[in-house]
Amino acid sequence: MSDETLPDLDTIIQRFVERYQIRNAADFNLALCGTSENAIPGLKKKNSKELLEKAKERLSDLQSLLHANNTSSVLIVLQGMDTAGKDGTIRHVMSGVNPQGVSVVSFRQPGPHELQHGFLWRLHIAAPSSGRITIFNRSQYEDVLITRVHPHLLEREHLPGEAGTPAFWQARFDDIRSFEHYLARQGTLVLKFFLNISKKEQRQRLLDRLDDPSKQWKFSPSDIEERSYWDDYQNAYQDAIRQTSTDFAPWFAVPADNKWYARLVVVSTIVKALTDLRQQAPNVPSDVRSNLENYRKQLLAETNN
Amino acid sequence: MSDETLPDLDTIIQRFVERYQIRNAADFNLALCGTSENAIPGLKKKNSKELLEKAKERLSDLQSLLHANNTSSVLIVLQGMDTAGKDGTIRHVMSGVNPQGVSVVSFRQPGPHELQHGFLWRLHIAAPSSGRITIFNRSQYEDVLITRVHPHLLEREHLPGEAGTPAFWQARFDDIRSFEHYLARQGTLVLKFFLNISKKEQRQRLLDRLDDPSKQWKFSPSDIEERSYWDDYQNAYQDAIRQTSTDFAPWFAVPADNKWYARLVVVSTIVKALTDLRQQAPNVPSDVRSNLENYRKQLLAETNN
Repeated sequence: MSDETLPDLDTIIQRFVERYQIRNAADFNLALCGTSENAIPGLKKKNSKELLEKAKERLSDLQSLLHANNTSSVLIVLQGMDTAGKDGTIRHVMSGVNPQGVSVVSFRQPGPHELQHGFLWRLHIAAPSSGRITIFNRSQYEDVLITRVHPHLLEREHLPGEAGTPAFWQARFDDIRSFEHYLARQGTLVLKFFLNISKKEQRQRLLDRLDDPSKQWKFSPSDIEERSYWDDYQNAYQDAIRQTSTDFAPWFAVPADNKWYARLVVVSTIVKALTDLRQQAPNVPSDVRSNLENYRKQLLAETNN
Repeated sequence: MSDETLPDLDTIIQRFVERYQIRNAADFNLALCGTSENAIPGLKKKNSKELLEKAKERLSDLQSLLHANNTSSVLIVLQGMDTAGKDGTIRHVMSGVNPQGVSVVSFRQPGPHELQHGFLWRLHIAAPSSGRITIFNRSQYEDVLITRVHPHLLEREHLPGEAGTPAFWQARFDDIRSFEHYLARQGTLVLKFFLNISKKEQRQRLLDRLDDPSKQWKFSPSDIEERSYWDDYQNAYQDAIRQTSTDFAPWFAVPADNKWYARLVVVSTIVKALTDLRQQAPNVPSDVRSNLENYRKQLLAETNN
């Protein structure tokens, strides 16, 4: 690293996690969270690439150990407004990791079959199996975000009793917390990221999408429509994060106006959580170990290959 | 490329596909397939890395178009003896591709729940959705390979009628062909790779596994046990490839004693198949297109962000 004022990767990782993990959930105030701040002296877009590559190499090694040990797993929840950078974050953060160990599941509007089930059903089916990293691109939180902003969507959900009341939303938060606690108890690290962009930055990204013929197909009129509910979404996010920030499934509010910064925060946070597992290469089963020399002799004694 | 005798990537891709696709299925003779040949003059391990990176970049671009168009999909079947390099091929070939567009599914010995279903059931569930690439690490072919070499495994499968007869295996091949034909008709490119290693090379790789403490945990006594059935497996592979090499789901017999060569053949074959789709960036829906200027004005007119 040429810039001598830049801290080393471990220090940066530590600082990111300290700064962006939501710890005092009840006091969480989304309006006070920066969307374009930079918490690391000397860190610039230019020197961030080398750091990102380094962090991805670590992630790749940590994933190999996760796979080898085959007991823990990782669930990464990515949430954010349209254009917040969820797809790009997945692409840039996970592209160096062995694809055999990673699944990405995108949750769109639920279809008729999914709506016949409880809202957590499709999420549970997609939860990571042991040794694997699963990324939810949108998640169970859509059921307390888009559905909360547009409560008429609840009409499709075949719900008993009164829906959309304060008690109803409180119950959903309870269910989500319990589900995540259950996952954590099965050995799943649950890490939840809110990619936090400003309304101004979203406008610019939508304009970019409209202006660039190669991006126009990504534009949907509903992007503009949903944008008019910006404040409602901010309130819904704030409440969701307040209600579901726990030690076993923490939220991270990631400044995301600068894509390179958001990606570095996300990869750092995952690296930190996996490093804290203190994984080692697995032991060879004792019955195999005691016979290794016999197997070696048997192979060496072969003829006629 | 410094070596002036080396053909360009397009020529190499073309030559690989011509050479390794099984076209005259009935005459297929596995014993005549090279495990360590090199079909490209001037190609060496040293200069293969640059080619692999180039091919992976193409694959990455082709995958983006596959995702954008969201009609076709790709199913890659990877088969081979233990240590043939299936895991490494997945890691090295697909690691540059957007993980959001790729799924890897490993098929181990079926469990009790899976055995309650027909042998294609779990494969069909894992088949790619539109716009995606799915890799089967082992596949439906295990049901005509390991099960054929060890027919007592059929006893667990809750089968009606006589199992393990010539007619039974013929019926399985028919079912696999029909299943793959169905997938092809839904828009799935089915590409099947047999990573072809020599018995001698397998011995060396098993010895390496035994000798390297960091790899010993990967060693299983069953690797040695299965090795004693080498010729039975070769026969089973030959018959399976004869019976299921089709235009809609071709097999490729890939020389795999040199890992770098096998990886280059696999990525080249996938790139060729996707290139032949002649994908373009999708069109913007006409109702959106005609309103693009209005959306732009609406965003620009906003104040108080």
